[in-house]
Amino acid sequence: MAVTNRDMANAIRALSMDAVEAAKSGHVGLPLGMADASTVLFRKFLKFDASNPDWPDRDRFVLSAGHGSMLIYSLLHLTGYKSVSRDDIRNFRQLGSNTPGHPENFVTKGVETTTGPLGQGIATAVGMAMAERHLNARFGDDLVDHKTYVIAGDGCLMEGISQEAITLAGHMKLNRLIVLWDDNSVTIDGNIDVADSTDQCARFEAAGWVTRKVDGHDEKDIEAGLKWAQKQKQPVFLAVKTIIGYGAPKLAGTGKAHGGPYGADEVAGIRENIGWPHEPFEIPAPIEKAWKKVGERGKDTRKAWKERLMASPHKGEFNAAIAGRLPKNLSKAIIKHKKAVVEGGEKKATRQWSGAALEVLTHHVPEMVGGSADLTGSNNTKTAVTGPMTPQDWSGRYVHYGVREHGMAAAMNGMSLHGGIIPYSGTFLAFADYSRAAIRLGALMGARVIHVMTHDSIGLGEDGPTHQPVEQVASLRVMPNMLVFRPADGVETAECWEIAINRETGPSTMALTRQGLTPARKEHTEENLCEKGAYVLSPSGVKSREAAVLIATGSEVEIALAAQAELAKEKIHVRVVSMPCMELFAQQDEKYQRETLGGDLPKVAVEAGVRIGWDRWIGPKGGFVGMDSFGASAPYDDLYKHFGITAEHVANTVKGLI
Amino acid sequence: MAVTNRDMANAIRALSMDAVEAAKSGHVGLPLGMADASTVLFRKFLKFDASNPDWPDRDRFVLSAGHGSMLIYSLLHLTGYKSVSRDDIRNFRQLGSNTPGHPENFVTKGVETTTGPLGQGIATAVGMAMAERHLNARFGDDLVDHKTYVIAGDGCLMEGISQEAITLAGHMKLNRLIVLWDDNSVTIDGNIDVADSTDQCARFEAAGWVTRKVDGHDEKDIEAGLKWAQKQKQPVFLAVKTIIGYGAPKLAGTGKAHGGPYGADEVAGIRENIGWPHEPFEIPAPIEKAWKKVGERGKDTRKAWKERLMASPHKGEFNAAIAGRLPKNLSKAIIKHKKAVVEGGEKKATRQWSGAALEVLTHHVPEMVGGSADLTGSNNTKTAVTGPMTPQDWSGRYVHYGVREHGMAAAMNGMSLHGGIIPYSGTFLAFADYSRAAIRLGALMGARVIHVMTHDSIGLGEDGPTHQPVEQVASLRVMPNMLVFRPADGVETAECWEIAINRETGPSTMALTRQGLTPARKEHTEENLCEKGAYVLSPSGVKSREAAVLIATGSEVEIALAAQAELAKEKIHVRVVSMPCMELFAQQDEKYQRETLGGDLPKVAVEAGVRIGWDRWIGPKGGFVGMDSFGASAPYDDLYKHFGITAEHVANTVKGLI
Repeated sequence: MAVTNRDMANAIRALSMDAVEAAKSGHVGLPLGMADASTVLFRKFLKFDASNPDWPDRDRFVLSAGHGSMLIYSLLHLTGYKSVSRDDIRNFRQLGSNTPGHPENFVTKGVETTTGPLGQGIATAVGMAMAERHLNARFGDDLVDHKTYVIAGDGCLMEGISQEAITLAGHMKLNRLIVLWDDNSVTIDGNIDVADSTDQCARFEAAGWVTRKVDGHDEKDIEAGLKWAQKQKQPVFLAVKTIIGYGAPKLAGTGKAHGGPYGADEVAGIRENIGWPHEPFEIPAPIEKAWKKVGERGKDTRKAWKERLMASPHKGEFNAAIAGRLPKNLSKAIIKHKKAVVEGGEKKATRQWSGAALEVLTHHVPEMVGGSADLTGSNNTKTAVTGPMTPQDWSGRYVHYGVREHGMAAAMNGMSLHGGIIPYSGTFLAFADYSRAAIRLGALMGARVIHVMTHDSIGLGEDGPTHQPVEQVASLRVMPNMLVFRPADGVETAECWEIAINRETGPSTMALTRQGLTPARKEHTEENLCEKGAYVLSPSGVKSREAAVLIATGSEVEIALAAQAELAKEKIHVRVVSMPCMELFAQQDEKYQRETLGGDLPKVAVEAGVRIGWDRWIGPKGGFVGMDSFGASAPYDDLYKHFGITAEHVANTVKGLI
Repeated sequence: MAVTNRDMANAIRALSMDAVEAAKSGHVGLPLGMADASTVLFRKFLKFDASNPDWPDRDRFVLSAGHGSMLIYSLLHLTGYKSVSRDDIRNFRQLGSNTPGHPENFVTKGVETTTGPLGQGIATAVGMAMAERHLNARFGDDLVDHKTYVIAGDGCLMEGISQEAITLAGHMKLNRLIVLWDDNSVTIDGNIDVADSTDQCARFEAAGWVTRKVDGHDEKDIEAGLKWAQKQKQPVFLAVKTIIGYGAPKLAGTGKAHGGPYGADEVAGIRENIGWPHEPFEIPAPIEKAWKKVGERGKDTRKAWKERLMASPHKGEFNAAIAGRLPKNLSKAIIKHKKAVVEGGEKKATRQWSGAALEVLTHHVPEMVGGSADLTGSNNTKTAVTGPMTPQDWSGRYVHYGVREHGMAAAMNGMSLHGGIIPYSGTFLAFADYSRAAIRLGALMGARVIHVMTHDSIGLGEDGPTHQPVEQVASLRVMPNMLVFRPADGVETAECWEIAINRETGPSTMALTRQGLTPARKEHTEENLCEKGAYVLSPSGVKSREAAVLIATGSEVEIALAAQAELAKEKIHVRVVSMPCMELFAQQDEKYQRETLGGDLPKVAVEAGVRIGWDRWIGPKGGFVGMDSFGASAPYDDLYKHFGITAEHVANTVKGLI
């Protein structure tokens, strides 16, 4: 018997429905509907080698509609990825299996990015496609020449982030990005017309894409569409018309087909309708064999690629870029920069110091690709060596992301996951709220991205409370696997950048001031003092009569130092601890923590943000000088006085405690 | 001399540039560019009466591009709103003035909503326009018959939230929504083509809008466009072509025209170019008079409306709706419901209890309009009396928002600001990250909206870490003016809803479980025990030998109660405090706080989320049983065991402390 596309697609259908029934939860509607199209994609177009999931020049496949995870697990399993065994399929959604409810790249090899929160996949894929073009410009067609395929659902397309992603992709003319829209006209609340009437093809065309409609259950039509897609000069949107829950006697084509186990009757009906008489989790050998061959399709291509790499003069550089290895001389360059900063003794905003640190870093690290959400001049993210990345010149290392904070954060995740790029980009800290869902996904995935967030407090001044982040530092500190840095001057900014750029296991946020700050660090040290998260910046001087401890971050360190000087005049001796990264300090042993914070001495924290997060360090009797409301519009020095974030208030708070 | 549209527009230009020069900050590019168009709008179309800014049937005017705030301040001042004096204009962006950097509706009468974070204005306006249609369906043309106008810039249109807003508006056929796009081809980073190539008219048409291009400096063309806009059956998008910084000799039409003071030379050049020889802040009397007349244009219309209201049988109901007054019998109905819940003793998820409470509330409060971002069945937000709101039947009280969390939250803000509606709607708590920027704006504005956030922890189970909110409760607690409720059972859910619905000064979040919970409250009380944020749910029983205090919220209250029972077997007597709202508890006096939390007794908090926020209550030696990482995909009871959130672990933690 000749194994057909439909037979192979039915294997996906069978595994998906059997897994969802066994788990008693999950979403089988999408795998049933998109099985035919994804089978064509994997059989005839996708460049991959199942035995080498990390091959850098593979095509990327992103299931943006992540709830249909059984589609991807079926594909990985059938094509022979070691990461997904038949037992993993049986243990879909169980603790410790490689088949979690939504695809997680940090659990399952072959999954390119974690999806589930809708719209993230397509936006992440835009970053991957940009990374491909940039690395192609750097290393040439021989080493980098692949495509990015996305399956997206109606939910992905309704999310605002998808608009940011597709307009960015259209503007960048990312013609190697091919989106297959699972056009099934159904969402959870019912038919799509309950909530949406968008002409998606017209919308994508307005964003600079080319579009084509395809019958998602007609192998020939799908193949013709995908063939056509290979030759376009713009990103490609294929509207793949499908029936959700394809084959299910009662549920197919309805809102109820989206998720949940269908139950024994429906599953039996599907078996009947698609002609699949086999037992649950059983795949006939010919079909199994045909799928395995698909998984081996790319082997020779990969071998040829490997040979080209071995012969390439770029070999070392390419491998270092993909591995994300930093140059050995970087640490020295940072030390040299720190020394110059201390010697200069200038009063500058930390966003300016960040710009200065970036000049050093981007000069030494060619993998760094910067950008800003239309605030380049304010975020100080552009450096001398980072020219604009454009469709005409992909070698550029600076992305004008436009006013698209959310799409930008997701694109950075995609660049990082793709490999070969260490992305950073800027916006105002208040607008971290716009990109939070993507920032979080980066933290979950452990993506190495750096969010430059300037104008980090009421110090922003006249723009007022909409732009003043009083709670955003705290809101990022609560996020697992995120490091939030709030440096106090030029030296700390350089040190925090050094930690961030060396961090391979997750994202970092740099919270930076708009306003100029007096240098806190006046002596040069080779050692990175910020590495432990907090340190004694200015001892009390009179240890035996030390009365209290001031802890501050960022722009409030100079206020704490001024308060220390005020108090000293009254013979009240306090130390000042700078705490540029609370998360790193929390990782230190208790001894270092107690020593740094002066044991049981009374403590006052100073930060122009909300108190939550500080109680752990200052204790229930500790003092806090900061914000307990939104800010206001006025020159920043007026605001600091108005909200009582002053040396005088800090000094008085100390006096009230001792 | 006859005063022309251009003369009047130039008064806006002059005030705007003089104010920005005086403040040495602000954005004059938009006021200079949009002065002509907005003058036409206010002179000939906008229905308003400057002496009655609260007139419910006024047209709403939203400056979505809020950075151009001097446009709105100029218009309010010139048309005679008392809220903006000439001195306020002189004191633009100064502490205590009525002219903050971005328009703030809670500071300045006549400003309909706070804008500045881009895209929020247009999305909020969609909610206002929906509110108008709904109230029109309820009260008729005589009382409700107005339009919503928006000025949006390129930044607004690049933000993803704008896509959610415009597709919702298009789907709802909101033909009384008219957007004027300040099509000036410039953003902060330079010409728009640095970052965007979208065909905006095509994009809006794809979303179901009608569009028309207008010359923004041609009075007749603008007027013709606005006239045409009045008669459409779909929402209207006017692409108003303007020159940013109109009149400025060097800066006009450039990226530098966006913001910042232009300096004396440029300002002198503008005066010359627009023919404005007057001193700063000086407006010639004829122009002043012409503008005042514009402000009085709507007086008679308003009086006629008032007469209709006085004669209407709906008068009382209409006034109550606009004032947001709740019916007197509501409290009794809630008490009755609580009694029935206690007597039933059922084990249910708090999302189901929320649905049950909503049945009572929506039955009694016709102003409540519900909805969900495509999770109606999961959020339990739809009730018997809330039929779908559709373009065919605007009287419906349930909005199928689609997968548009951000647009939904902003639309709710708009409904609340419009008046006559108390909006609530649902999504998964993890996706609060998508809507955070709009949630925050609601908190800043003090908007009365209720965010129903279900599936509030790892208790969500199989969907895994992307969908499990481990840090979202904490991230919402850090937001000023937000109340976060996490009720433990059916009674607490009803009580928390009662507090939320009665709160007129800001938003509330209901964090609700997916999983069923054992009832915590077993005796009926008329008193709302949740009102103080925390209370002793289960005393230790043996006060003299009380050893510790357990504090828990939501689904972890049953775990704390089980731990209490376990410990009692070993003669360790602890109390259990339920803390459904940390913010309300923080507002209580210290005496109540100390009494409730058992003074200096050791404390253990139990919450299936991150620790931040708890240290304040448990102290530095306190125990915490919760999460310190992202979750995982598995059945929820497996996850609770895996992450150690169990009665046994709580009991052991207590034993380790005492």
